[in-house]
Amino acid sequence: MFKDLVLKNRSYRRFDERFEISKNDLMNLVELARLTPSSVNWQPLRFALVYDKEINAKIFENLAWAGLLKEWKGPAEGERPTAYIIILCDNTVAKNMKTDVGIVAQTMMLGAAEKGLGGCMIGSVNRDNVYKILNIDKDRYSIDLVLALGKPAETVKIVDLPDDGCTNYYRDENDVHCVPKRKAEDLVIFLR
Amino acid sequence: MFKDLVLKNRSYRRFDERFEISKNDLMNLVELARLTPSSVNWQPLRFALVYDKEINAKIFENLAWAGLLKEWKGPAEGERPTAYIIILCDNTVAKNMKTDVGIVAQTMMLGAAEKGLGGCMIGSVNRDNVYKILNIDKDRYSIDLVLALGKPAETVKIVDLPDDGCTNYYRDENDVHCVPKRKAEDLVIFLR
Repeated sequence: MFKDLVLKNRSYRRFDERFEISKNDLMNLVELARLTPSSVNWQPLRFALVYDKEINAKIFENLAWAGLLKEWKGPAEGERPTAYIIILCDNTVAKNMKTDVGIVAQTMMLGAAEKGLGGCMIGSVNRDNVYKILNIDKDRYSIDLVLALGKPAETVKIVDLPDDGCTNYYRDENDVHCVPKRKAEDLVIFLR
Repeated sequence: MFKDLVLKNRSYRRFDERFEISKNDLMNLVELARLTPSSVNWQPLRFALVYDKEINAKIFENLAWAGLLKEWKGPAEGERPTAYIIILCDNTVAKNMKTDVGIVAQTMMLGAAEKGLGGCMIGSVNRDNVYKILNIDKDRYSIDLVLALGKPAETVKIVDLPDDGCTNYYRDENDVHCVPKRKAEDLVIFLR
């Protein structure tokens, strides 16, 4: 069932860093991305694929992790992502294609989940530094989203919203990452 | 394989209108949407679910179909969608969440494909009219995307780009809808 894959595809932020991700794994995800719908079929999105230890470390330094976990500075050494997919938009093709970005990002993450991988979509990026690391023309390409990938090494659980309706995720007393999700019926505002 | 589902999930614009879509089918797709990642876990998106013949007809009148097929005015009677999911953003929760919209839209379309359904993401919408049809507060909710759904009744084929690199989709001499997609290797601008 596709729902099982959607459920498996949680946002993971701690990984088993001994597990490497191959170029082939990443290219398989790009192959999925190319098969997704694109507005007016423009297909303006491009991908920077990073799986080399040295470049991984440089990218890692320029990402902000889990803004809602104020005490946590991000994954420690040994639990960091072992690959990144940086999603860029070629502005000579089309601009401001955020819906395309979401379509592609989710498709790639579902593909990663099928392989037993996982990760997190990160929008809080020191873009100036990442342009330099990748040696990419910042006038032509916008960095829209970063997919941090690895072999998940934490438990993530969907829970109900608390009584006050707060959607903030948190870690419970067993270090389980808990994500309050609204109920389906609360998302429907017209039905006929 | 997840790739088979991604391949099955083409953008369809002609349907077998005898095939009805149930409220339950649509709620199953909302259940998938609620399980998707959302920026800062805000979950600002809401859904208007339409499967009633009369409302379907009203929504249909306010959508623009396949802008690149200049001669085609959209699906004829008998081949129109039998349900719509209108994706809205509750601006009291968060604004301008287009990446969330893409994540949710693709997840719902993949879920529809698994059920043997299909459809098209439509951004060209007469929003003022749709707000009135749904009786929804336009100051609070933005209409971000419409998913038109039905039982597909056309063939859609992925093809290579022509020599001039044009990505425009077209219908061939057998009325097959052809969608030129870039090759995976042409989407990768950094690899290491």
